[in-house]
This record gives sequence, structure tokens and C-alpha cells, in this order.
Amino acid sequence: MIDSPTLALAKDLIRRPSVTPKDEGCQEVMIERLKALGFNIEVMVFEDTTNFWARRGTESPLFVFAGHTDVVPAGNIEQWQYPPFEPTVKDGFLFGRGAADMKGSLASMVVAVEEFISTNPDHQGSIGFLITSDEEGPFINGTVRVVDTLMARGENIEMCIVGEPSSTDIVGDVIKNGRRGSITGDITIKGIQGHVAYPHLANNPVHHSLAALQELTNMEWDQGNKYFPPTSFQIPNINAGTGASNVIPGELKVQFNLRFSTELNNDIIMSKVIAVLDKHQLDYGIDWTFNGDPFLTDTGALLESVVKAVNDVNQTEPQLLTTGGTSDGRFIARMGGQVVELGPVNATIHKVNECVNIEDLEKLTNMYKKTMENLLT
Amino acid sequence: MIDSPTLALAKDLIRRPSVTPKDEGCQEVMIERLKALGFNIEVMVFEDTTNFWARRGTESPLFVFAGHTDVVPAGNIEQWQYPPFEPTVKDGFLFGRGAADMKGSLASMVVAVEEFISTNPDHQGSIGFLITSDEEGPFINGTVRVVDTLMARGENIEMCIVGEPSSTDIVGDVIKNGRRGSITGDITIKGIQGHVAYPHLANNPVHHSLAALQELTNMEWDQGNKYFPPTSFQIPNINAGTGASNVIPGELKVQFNLRFSTELNNDIIMSKVIAVLDKHQLDYGIDWTFNGDPFLTDTGALLESVVKAVNDVNQTEPQLLTTGGTSDGRFIARMGGQVVELGPVNATIHKVNECVNIEDLEKLTNMYKKTMENLLT
Repeated sequence: MIDSPTLALAKDLIRRPSVTPKDEGCQEVMIERLKALGFNIEVMVFEDTTNFWARRGTESPLFVFAGHTDVVPAGNIEQWQYPPFEPTVKDGFLFGRGAADMKGSLASMVVAVEEFISTNPDHQGSIGFLITSDEEGPFINGTVRVVDTLMARGENIEMCIVGEPSSTDIVGDVIKNGRRGSITGDITIKGIQGHVAYPHLANNPVHHSLAALQELTNMEWDQGNKYFPPTSFQIPNINAGTGASNVIPGELKVQFNLRFSTELNNDIIMSKVIAVLDKHQLDYGIDWTFNGDPFLTDTGALLESVVKAVNDVNQTEPQLLTTGGTSDGRFIARMGGQVVELGPVNATIHKVNECVNIEDLEKLTNMYKKTMENLLT
Repeated sequence: MIDSPTLALAKDLIRRPSVTPKDEGCQEVMIERLKALGFNIEVMVFEDTTNFWARRGTESPLFVFAGHTDVVPAGNIEQWQYPPFEPTVKDGFLFGRGAADMKGSLASMVVAVEEFISTNPDHQGSIGFLITSDEEGPFINGTVRVVDTLMARGENIEMCIVGEPSSTDIVGDVIKNGRRGSITGDITIKGIQGHVAYPHLANNPVHHSLAALQELTNMEWDQGNKYFPPTSFQIPNINAGTGASNVIPGELKVQFNLRFSTELNNDIIMSKVIAVLDKHQLDYGIDWTFNGDPFLTDTGALLESVVKAVNDVNQTEPQLLTTGGTSDGRFIARMGGQVVELGPVNATIHKVNECVNIEDLEKLTNMYKKTMENLLT
């Protein structure tokens, strides 16, 4: 049996061991196919990261597929049933690192565009591709810099599907129509180091921080809203001490992270945290990392077209959710357009034996194509 | 000016760089002097540690000087005014690593015994020396093993002066007539590791431990008593996290240490800690380290004799305290005898530019000699 165009392209991409931030020629494969369709190509290399921007047409609306060719490392090779960079089909699934996150999506995008253009060579609006090799890494030289470049010249993405694996059981059962924001704080609480035998000469920062940490941990930050779960506060890292059992530590380091809804923003969170730390009269310093603002696409032609496309293929309505980690969608949303995420089932992503249902990949190609038909014809 | 016998011996000992657990011939110097006085010598080498036990006489009471020839490392050599292992006299002080802790005391002990025996060759009872090179180290192969050896053959120390630097402003202003106990607990609190974006799938052990840690920290363990300050609880080390800001840690490690009075014991402390951890329904494991029981010598001939000797020399009463860190006195106290600590001013111990007042050393020799006169004539 000959592989379908989507499966063949997905295999070709998986075979390239593009562990972040490497691309290993994946983008060149995509570019050749898009060039043949009349796309104008701009390769944008920033530091160690390869990106490209492709556009067909000059009219509005500008509809874009966004994604990444890089993958997370394979992890423990011995736990893989098949070599991670040798695409293997077994029992209706395609196995390999990136099969679900997100080389399968990339293949579906390219094939969907090929099929759409073959029947609609004179489509309305424009079609774009924004592809990076830095989504799994520090996301410094990837999508964010391509977006900066586009915004600087006034070329705004009005509608975008990010190919992140959004689905839970079958492809399209969940569309992510937004994402929570993420902010990280690194607090250093100062005390006075000393010998445990002379506590009156020292001041243990662990002891006098506990009440404040408890208040931050127990706080109801918001109740969420129709699209967002309640904001969550987590302490991923806490450290104090010299290792010796007889030394009262001189400082405590606490890192916290909030995944927050559109009910909050960075400023509100910062002032709430500072109020608690000040109230408990701590001697502290704090460094903030702003990982991304929350975004939400709750109306508009894009969302309607994607929902309709999924419904056509699956015969059921997709669920709209904003749960989960951050994605490059947050950078594209800065342009003010509509952004949704639609991709394969995410059950195996970042794990050994990552795989994707082959039928789901064909459906995904179909969903992407129908979305373009809804929007651009 | 010719050095006094005490100063000369102190210098000889300081010149030997006996950084724990090394002895560098210090004990041999002492042994030669004690042999000449008719002491019976037993060298006891355990692993990397050199110890000796010396005894003159077979009668009761057995009165013992205890101490150590090892010193802590010099630390930052550049901050020393004089080389740490070249004893230097300046402005009435003897400088050098170990000058106060406790080679000065060792010199005073030896010279005191020499002077005492020269006028009291047929003293009552027995005089002993218990000297180790492992007091500043892990105290595994030092005093504790000599004590085990003596106890195994029924040779019990009835009265002991430990030469630890007990004094605050001038020698003899403070006698330590006991020490707090010390117990360390290493708790591992288990949670469920996960991604910060999916807190409902994880369980952050930092969050659910805070209330228990606060309760342990705020607890009044006791109010102390006439001789002991209130028991203190300290968290010297706390650690959780992978370092990544997006991972909820799977476990939290907390180490705590209590310095406790004679109002408590290991069993009471263990049951109190466990009650708090259980009350907060934590999933935890705990490892205990028993560093030593508290001891107290609040009456008896030894204490009376030492107080009288100090009073004779200083014309003021010494203060009796049990504050500060642990000492080898805790191991000797296991034999059930009377144990006190009397030595130089401790202001510079374990620091750069460690020094001892030369007049204080002469006074200390005198105090030790008068104690023997009070007890053994």
C-alpha cells in the first residue's frame, strides 16, 4: 500500500532528528513544496534557530498556519519500541519523536494547502506559514522574532491556526481557543546566618517565610471565567541551607509560577505577591519572568470556520478549552488577530513511544482544508 | 624574657598543624611529660583518629582532664595577621590556630598536673587524661570510642574537666556545667510530580507541608529550666524542585535540628514531631540522627571544687551555663559521673586570628591546679 501524501510527508519529517533548536532540513522540505504552489519564501535565521515565513497572495484576510519543526529529545532510547527517528507504522499508528508534536500537523498543513490550491488556485485573501525550530527550547529566537519582524513592517496575521496537539481522544475533540498566561517569580528572602546552637544571634529565613508562603499558596487568585480555569499558583523550587545540619541558613530562595486567566494580568499578580511579602515584613528581593500574557479567541470567522470544519469531519462539536501549557500562540496573539490551536491527540507527546493515529492525520488534513474553504472561498 | 611553662607548651602544640583528624605529634609531646610524672599511658588509635588514655594512681575518685589536639582548618590564610601555625605573641595575646580551642587548655592541664604532683606526689585518688584528635571532626573514632573501651572494662570516670573554651570575657567567668542535647531529623515529604500547567494531575509537597512546618516552627517545646534555655527548633536545610520553573516537584526534603534541655529527650521529641506530621496527613519518611543527650552537673564535689578554684583566682563567682554547641562532654557524661567544662575565652575560636590572653592561660593553669588541690588532697 502506498502511503497517503500526509503520511509520506510526516515520515519524511520524522526521519530528520531535529532535536531543538535543530531543524535538520525539515523546513527545506516544506519550503520546496510551498514554492511549487507559488508561495513567497523568507528564511529568517536568528542565532541557533531556523525560521521561515511563507505567503501566497497579498490580499486580506491573511490566514496562517503556525508550527515548529523542532522536537524534544528522545529520552531513554531503550524504552522506545521503535527507533525514535525511524518512522514506524504499527496497528494504525505512526510512531516516532514528533509524530504528534508536531510533524504530523506540519504534514497535514502542507498537504491541505496543496489540495486546497489545486481546486482553488484563485482563493480569496492570503495564506501564510510561520514555522520555527525553537518552540521546544527557550523560545527566544523563534516565533517571537518572526512576529517582531512582521509587526515592524505592518504585516499583521489576522487569523492563525497553530498545529499544537490540542486533542484528547480523537483529533478535533478539543480546540484550544486561548491559553493561560504564565509569570514566574524568584524570591530571595534574607535572614542572618548563624550556628543552630545560638539561634538568638541568627534569623532563620525559612521560619519567618512560612506564613507568607502559606498565604500565597492558599490564596484564591480568581475563579476563572467561561473559558479559563481558576488561576493556579505553584512553587516549583524552594532551597535554603549549606547542607550542614548545624548552620542556620542566611537566605531562602523560593520560585513560584502562576498560570493565569484573562481575569488577571502581570501587574495585578505582582502587586498581590508584593503585598503579601510586605505584610509579613520579609526582607526580600524578587526577580520576575514574564512568560506570556493570556489570550482568548472567543468569537470571529476563524473560530466559526474551524469549528464547522471539525464538525463536518467528526460529526460532533469540538470542545473549546484554554487549559494546558503555553504555546507560540501567545506571541502571534500579540498582533491582535484570532488564534486557535488544532492538532492531534496529545497523550504521548514528550514521552517515549510518541505516536499519532494515521486516520487522525488524514482527518486533520481534511479539517485544515475545510477551514480554508470556509474562510477563503 | 623566658616563656612560662604553660606558654612554652602551648606554642609547641600550636606549631604542629594538627587539622582534624590529624594529631601531628601533639599527643606524643603530652605523653612524654605525663610518663615522666608516673602516668600509665594507653595509646588508642581508631581508624584515622589518635587518642590516648593516661592514668596516675588506682584509687577512687578518678579525676580526669579531657580534651582534643585537633583543630579546625585555618580558613582564609590571607586574613590571618600571623601564620596560623607559627605561634606569635603580640600585645599580651598568643595567636595561632588552636590557641583557644584548645591547645592552650592542654598546656595548662599538663603544667597544672606537673606543679600539683611536684608538691603532692602522693595525692589521693587518681588523675587521668582522655585526649583525642577527633573532636572537630565527625566524633566517631575519638572520645566516644575511648569511653566505650573504659566502660567495657568497668573503669568509670567519676569527675571530669573538659578544657573547651567556656569563657566569655575573662577565663573562668563562665563554667559550662552541662550541655543541651541535639537531635536531627531528615524528612522527605512525598507528592506527585507534574507539569505546573496541570496542577490537578500533580500534588505539590511544598504546598501541603507548609502548615506542618509552621506548626513545628512555632511550637513551644519547653520553657527550659534553671540551667537550660528553652529548647530551640531550627530548619537548617530545605530543598525541593528540579530547577525547572514548569515542574511541580515530587518531593520536599526538610532537615531540622533541636538543641534541647533536660526537660526533653529523644523519644518525646520524636513523638511530638511525628504527631504534627501525621495530623497534617503528610506522606513522609523520616531519618533521625541522635547527636547527643543533654547532661547536667548541678551538684557535687567536682563542681564545688572548680567554682572554688575559679573564685580563688578571679575573686568572683563563675556563672554556670549550659548554652552553646555540643562537646565531647556528652560522651563522658554517659558514664554517670560529674562533668564540667572550663577553658579560655571563646570569642575567636574557629575564626581567623584565633588567640588567647597569655595571662588567662596562667590563670587557667592555676584554676586547674587548685581544683586538684581541692579534690585530691
